[in-house]
Amino acid sequence: MSSSDIFIGETIGTAILILLGGGVCAAVTLKASKARNAGWLAIAFGWGFAVLTAVYTSAPLSGAHLNPAVTLALTIKDGGWANLPVYWGGQLLGAMIGATLVWVVYYGQFRAHLTDPEIVGAAENAPKAVEAEESAAGPVLGIFSTGPEIRNAVQNLATEIIGTIVLVLAVLTQGLNDKGNGLGPLGALITALVVVSIGLSLGGPTGYAINPARDLGPRIVHALLPLPNKGRSDWSYAWVPVVGPLIGGAIAAGLYNVAFA
Amino acid sequence: MSSSDIFIGETIGTAILILLGGGVCAAVTLKASKARNAGWLAIAFGWGFAVLTAVYTSAPLSGAHLNPAVTLALTIKDGGWANLPVYWGGQLLGAMIGATLVWVVYYGQFRAHLTDPEIVGAAENAPKAVEAEESAAGPVLGIFSTGPEIRNAVQNLATEIIGTIVLVLAVLTQGLNDKGNGLGPLGALITALVVVSIGLSLGGPTGYAINPARDLGPRIVHALLPLPNKGRSDWSYAWVPVVGPLIGGAIAAGLYNVAFA
Amino acid sequence: MSSSDIFIGETIGTAILILLGGGVCAAVTLKASKARNAGWLAIAFGWGFAVLTAVYTSAPLSGAHLNPAVTLALTIKDGGWANLPVYWGGQLLGAMIGATLVWVVYYGQFRAHLTDPEIVGAAENAPKAVEAEESAAGPVLGIFSTGPEIRNAVQNLATEIIGTIVLVLAVLTQGLNDKGNGLGPLGALITALVVVSIGLSLGGPTGYAINPARDLGPRIVHALLPLPNKGRSDWSYAWVPVVGPLIGGAIAAGLYNVAFA
Amino acid sequence: MSSSDIFIGETIGTAILILLGGGVCAAVTLKASKARNAGWLAIAFGWGFAVLTAVYTSAPLSGAHLNPAVTLALTIKDGGWANLPVYWGGQLLGAMIGATLVWVVYYGQFRAHLTDPEIVGAAENAPKAVEAEESAAGPVLGIFSTGPEIRNAVQNLATEIIGTIVLVLAVLTQGLNDKGNGLGPLGALITALVVVSIGLSLGGPTGYAINPARDLGPRIVHALLPLPNKGRSDWSYAWVPVVGPLIGGAIAAGLYNVAFA
Repeated sequence: MSSSDIFIGETIGTAILILLGGGVCAAVTLKASKARNAGWLAIAFGWGFAVLTAVYTSAPLSGAHLNPAVTLALTIKDGGWANLPVYWGGQLLGAMIGATLVWVVYYGQFRAHLTDPEIVGAAENAPKAVEAEESAAGPVLGIFSTGPEIRNAVQNLATEIIGTIVLVLAVLTQGLNDKGNGLGPLGALITALVVVSIGLSLGGPTGYAINPARDLGPRIVHALLPLPNKGRSDWSYAWVPVVGPLIGGAIAAGLYNVAFA
Repeated sequence: MSSSDIFIGETIGTAILILLGGGVCAAVTLKASKARNAGWLAIAFGWGFAVLTAVYTSAPLSGAHLNPAVTLALTIKDGGWANLPVYWGGQLLGAMIGATLVWVVYYGQFRAHLTDPEIVGAAENAPKAVEAEESAAGPVLGIFSTGPEIRNAVQNLATEIIGTIVLVLAVLTQGLNDKGNGLGPLGALITALVVVSIGLSLGGPTGYAINPARDLGPRIVHALLPLPNKGRSDWSYAWVPVVGPLIGGAIAAGLYNVAFA
Repeated sequence: MSSSDIFIGETIGTAILILLGGGVCAAVTLKASKARNAGWLAIAFGWGFAVLTAVYTSAPLSGAHLNPAVTLALTIKDGGWANLPVYWGGQLLGAMIGATLVWVVYYGQFRAHLTDPEIVGAAENAPKAVEAEESAAGPVLGIFSTGPEIRNAVQNLATEIIGTIVLVLAVLTQGLNDKGNGLGPLGALITALVVVSIGLSLGGPTGYAINPARDLGPRIVHALLPLPNKGRSDWSYAWVPVVGPLIGGAIAAGLYNVAFA
Repeated sequence: MSSSDIFIGETIGTAILILLGGGVCAAVTLKASKARNAGWLAIAFGWGFAVLTAVYTSAPLSGAHLNPAVTLALTIKDGGWANLPVYWGGQLLGAMIGATLVWVVYYGQFRAHLTDPEIVGAAENAPKAVEAEESAAGPVLGIFSTGPEIRNAVQNLATEIIGTIVLVLAVLTQGLNDKGNGLGPLGALITALVVVSIGLSLGGPTGYAINPARDLGPRIVHALLPLPNKGRSDWSYAWVPVVGPLIGGAIAAGLYNVAFA
């Protein structure tokens, strides 16, 4: 694969991932959306099938990492460090494009939601309760980036590390399962359902970033977009969903090299 | 493929698509349906598995486009403009047959729903609120055709274009993913789950037509059927789910030719 | 395949189908079940994955028809009328075994539910409302057999015919889709998801029997089981989910022979 | 496969299984979890995709039994009794590791939940009602181990036996369905969806252990963990989800040898 194919593939793929993943969060959260209050199962399937669509579409170009932690783990396993910044750059750019497209698709919904005095007032007046992510970080940040239900750096980091280990182990063993046929449609489907699984099972405490680009790119877009009453971008938490997944990816690669290789 | 195989395959396939897709909308909407109020997840899976069933059944005859935007994109990519009207004709006819079959299957439910004074009265008296699609376009039009939660031609068109780009990119890269094995059961499954994804993530604002025949055919049937209190067919919006998907399909084909070919 | 393999395979497969399919109805309906009120999506996925499990398990023995309408259609298409009564016999016996196993698994739940004065009293005193299946046919018959929300022989029959045509067309085109590899795991999965689709989309009016054995076998078991306050077995409706699917299977076979063969 | 590969594979695989399976129970149960009250469908899909992730990841090392009842059945069918204790040991150790990781991931949620006077008080003061598992066995035991809605050793045992027979028959016929290709991604997916099916359909009465390690390992961890107000570990029930699945596995192996071999 050429560097330009990698960069273009990762940019397109991650843009689709975040468009669809951020999209389901917008669909379930925002006023005047047909999917409002569709629940956690919709979120988990929405992100999983976002992975499916994005991986399937970009795999022929770049191999569809779409996640800096996956690129790090595969590079530890197989080498090719020169390509790592190309992957990471495409992933971050793609995530920012995807988050911007969510805003385009839900333009009117964002405006209706964020200018509704009842919704905005409730978020602003909410106590710093453990259950209300919005009260801690603005009413719609959750459509862009993840945030903890209970703010505890050690636990939050551990949760992101463990979730990413599960994801990356499944990605790495894919190479043992495919009998030399490459990722393919079935590999994309399995990866997607693994992400559904992580969402359902490990997403409760932090919203399962398990991908630095998925969290950082949209957080930058949240900070830049001219949304009224959007609240703060919660930069004090931003390091957790970047550092945690990278640590998780490295641990998974080490575990793989010890136990599976 | 002969022209008659194409026409028959597209007619049967699109009829199944709209029978099952319109069917889940009827099932979730209408009084005296066992699935009433089953929620947006049921809608999204219902349309996705409608695609699966329709594609799987018609693929051996016509290749299962079932969507004028898909036909347009594949024709831009591969040529064969002479067949385009055959595909489009079968698709529109099939969509009309499918919508009529929804009416047959839910005949008693339509009658019970549309003659219930409480339901019909509520719809008629509703203010032109942004949240009530029914109030804008009659109580059961949503079973046939799509409509926006917030009526804004630019945003609605953008939403349909972006949703269709995602769908068509996945369809076009299918040819790169299948290693020469053709669409097959796995390709049909992936396409179906991509549609579930689009529904969950991008369906909130407009109800994701992403297919001109899916919207226009049933809208014509809604206009013709002798349903009491059916409300208006909202022809002023009808161009958006036709033009948007065609633009989206063309853009996706262009993007494919630049980045993937 | 020998006659005894066919009979044993169909008996085991249909027993698993009805154990799991009736099981999800019991799980969602009965008091003191962890899955109570899990909703229509649970019903639709429950029946679909029941088909998956049953087809996958019995396919190596009998080809996994598990449905007299499927056997009729395949026999019209491929011949082999001598085996038809063997298939049908195994299917009916298996359905009765499956329904009895549902009763074993949910033994305490049936007793708690049917001796709860509030539940039983409500069912007995209910008016003959169109929305209450239980009021029309006893409080737990829905765990065994299907029943219409609105009792209209013509519409109910049409709904069962149309649902079965969709199912059987997908089964028949399976032979065109598998490229000579036979049913296999992927064929079982597609068939299962087609059944989920039919449940979500066409199940609203009658509860989608689309299989004479699925309805008749459990109805016989309902009539025989010593359940207190079980209500009547609604034999006046019993012909619809037997005749409708057989007509649907025959029409699908004819349509296949005209359009696909 | 070497003994060490078997042991490591089963340990890793069962740890992932219980991390994700226990995780979804924690996600749906605990205060301050984003997935709280996501419902039974989330539980059933969560456990099913936990199986998918765990089987897919560990299959290349150990064949991914991850369940003493599966190991027993495969050993009855194929021999290899010397490896049985290696499988069982890895499975029990992995289950204990997985349950401990659930506690790490949901550390703050466990604390917030178990020190909330309203939640703990309600559980302690609850009557021994048939519907309240928590009242019978402590407020969070259900995140670790299964428990019956109605305590009846005969019915509970029968339910676990029947559920395990369905699971193990599907696992054993996998060898007939894969045409010599081994488990593979598709086999892992089918197995996972069979587990979703058993959860939806047969999980209502006892919570479907259908796996001795899945129940015993986490129960030991529940007894050892320093959780406040955690309630008792319900050891009087602990034999049912161990003995039932082993009996079910043996019956399934016998049935397989008679009908399928």
